[in-house]
Amino acid sequence: MSVPEAERLARVTLSCGVEPGDGTTSQLVRQIGPVKAVQSSLVPKPDSGLAARLEAVDPVRQLEQAERCGIRFVVPGDPEWPAGLDLLDDAITLEGFGGTPPGLWVKGPMPLTALASSVAVVGSRAASVYGIEMTRTLCEHLASSGVPVVSGGALGIDFVAHDATLVAGGATVAVLACGVDRVYPAQNRRLLHHLATELAVVSEQPPGSAPTRPRFLARNRLIAALTRGTVLVEAALRSGALNTAGWAELLSRHVMCVPGPVTSYTSQGVNNWLRQGRATVVTHGSEVLELLGQAGQHLVVEPRGEERARDALSRVERQVLEWVPVSTPAQVDSIAHLSSLHVRETVGALRRLEAKRFVRLEEGGWRLVPDT
Amino acid sequence: MSVPEAERLARVTLSCGVEPGDGTTSQLVRQIGPVKAVQSSLVPKPDSGLAARLEAVDPVRQLEQAERCGIRFVVPGDPEWPAGLDLLDDAITLEGFGGTPPGLWVKGPMPLTALASSVAVVGSRAASVYGIEMTRTLCEHLASSGVPVVSGGALGIDFVAHDATLVAGGATVAVLACGVDRVYPAQNRRLLHHLATELAVVSEQPPGSAPTRPRFLARNRLIAALTRGTVLVEAALRSGALNTAGWAELLSRHVMCVPGPVTSYTSQGVNNWLRQGRATVVTHGSEVLELLGQAGQHLVVEPRGEERARDALSRVERQVLEWVPVSTPAQVDSIAHLSSLHVRETVGALRRLEAKRFVRLEEGGWRLVPDT
Repeated sequence: MSVPEAERLARVTLSCGVEPGDGTTSQLVRQIGPVKAVQSSLVPKPDSGLAARLEAVDPVRQLEQAERCGIRFVVPGDPEWPAGLDLLDDAITLEGFGGTPPGLWVKGPMPLTALASSVAVVGSRAASVYGIEMTRTLCEHLASSGVPVVSGGALGIDFVAHDATLVAGGATVAVLACGVDRVYPAQNRRLLHHLATELAVVSEQPPGSAPTRPRFLARNRLIAALTRGTVLVEAALRSGALNTAGWAELLSRHVMCVPGPVTSYTSQGVNNWLRQGRATVVTHGSEVLELLGQAGQHLVVEPRGEERARDALSRVERQVLEWVPVSTPAQVDSIAHLSSLHVRETVGALRRLEAKRFVRLEEGGWRLVPDT
Repeated sequence: MSVPEAERLARVTLSCGVEPGDGTTSQLVRQIGPVKAVQSSLVPKPDSGLAARLEAVDPVRQLEQAERCGIRFVVPGDPEWPAGLDLLDDAITLEGFGGTPPGLWVKGPMPLTALASSVAVVGSRAASVYGIEMTRTLCEHLASSGVPVVSGGALGIDFVAHDATLVAGGATVAVLACGVDRVYPAQNRRLLHHLATELAVVSEQPPGSAPTRPRFLARNRLIAALTRGTVLVEAALRSGALNTAGWAELLSRHVMCVPGPVTSYTSQGVNNWLRQGRATVVTHGSEVLELLGQAGQHLVVEPRGEERARDALSRVERQVLEWVPVSTPAQVDSIAHLSSLHVRETVGALRRLEAKRFVRLEEGGWRLVPDT
């Protein structure tokens, strides 16, 4: 059941001729299929350059050129097509963008099917030391649990998410706003080259496309749709990462936020989402796995404080300890009375508590050793 | 409709003879009144020192002594009795403690009626600089809004909550686990003395009582019950402040948490409560007021990022700007095409954007100025 060539070529034409995140075209494709969608769009309409742009595409040549560069074009019907993208219903839009892309351009050996269990880890470009550290710890845990990490290949949190996953031997994929053959930002040249060679770089934009603001916004919906949930590590109040979280929310995926200091600029957007109840707090990779797993999988042991010496005391010792005053010493009689224990029992317990350095005998009676 | 003297004296006896947070006695008082509760408890029972302890109390003398020290005993039926304490139903228990106290010992001129609009601000004794700063800012806002701050008079967050409220000219009350005439911890001598002289210090324990662990746990329910909500600024996983939050939760009061760094020991308990969905994120005093206010009162303006120069652009300028590439420059024709605008219009917009330093003309065309 392979995809008909005409359909694949029509999708190449749409991918090259239509800007990403165009819900109208996506809807048309859904209704009448890609071949007819191209045909009907080739009729010039006033105030629209669409027909001319589609006319200018040579899909066969595009596909050949891409293949020569080791880039494949994955479309609905291909075994590698990520089912999550079909959730990008045309009714779901954010800032004017929406719709299923006509196809995905992919460079790299990793099959997109591996993304079925993936998590998006995104955040500010202007990351803080705290954000970087949290991203690194989270991604190391995800990598060691075999969960692929998807991010946007940008500077800051994105870079660290990819990098930390790689260092921990995990799988990670960058979803770009430009063509998968382009390097943006230039500082991430080595990372992007490594991903394109060893794992995968993905874009709905055809090879050669430049990154523009709208393409970043359109791209964000793919990051949310390709993954089971989005972890927002750090984001200022107007960070683009919040847009990705918005997409995850619209698609009913888990939105997970790492809380941060209220006083940190780069945690304001994150804390605001938590305040609005739009995201779940995560403080560790294991909590991400618990949220995303099947019921009963990856259950997290509730965090507890360290065990204290107090926990190891006998019932009688504890009962006595409860009534030893913090400041002014008390007599054995009084402690026995309050503890509802015999004096002899109380004295024994006090002596054992003294040996364990919980209490001490001072002039005037027994009192707690400070800080127990 | 003043409280009968016999009833008040019976409550003094119960307050002096029964350890705080004893739900059984509280239930008895609710069912048969304080006078009969004392009478029925005076019958000695095996394994219980209660009868002997009650027998030993001289309530008239206790009351006289307290009054000589400027301490009053407020009981249900007094105009000053805080209605919130009646919510401490005997069915509500936490770690074995519960029940309405027989009365409150109060030192200081501030009437407890002023607590009707109060907020509890609590947290770790081992506070971090971050926690201290957040407590200070929150309490300054509450003070300047006329909202009294209740806390436990302890070191750390409690101290800062009282202190910052006082510095900002606000009202604040300490609820203690020992008698209101005692100074615990000793380091807070000046603070506690100031509160007892100018505002109020409150305890269910009679004057002279020492602070013990159970009394701290019992005390926490009063902090929660006396206030409209509890703000937890910082708390480690086993902090006593979480016990106060637990009481606020049981009493269906608002529990508000200030999120903190996951890497900070003193924010672990707070972040854990947020993760469990048991508390609302607050990042500013205004958000506390909004949560506690009547519907429509104290509405918070949603935090927004700073206005950016981009926000002031015209529609056409924005439309053009959207299509100016980040990296590789683009020709005017291409930008006009993508923007669906005439070339002349596009050039005009590009020139204005250039003057505003959004874009620049390079060899090869227009591109964005980095970081816009």
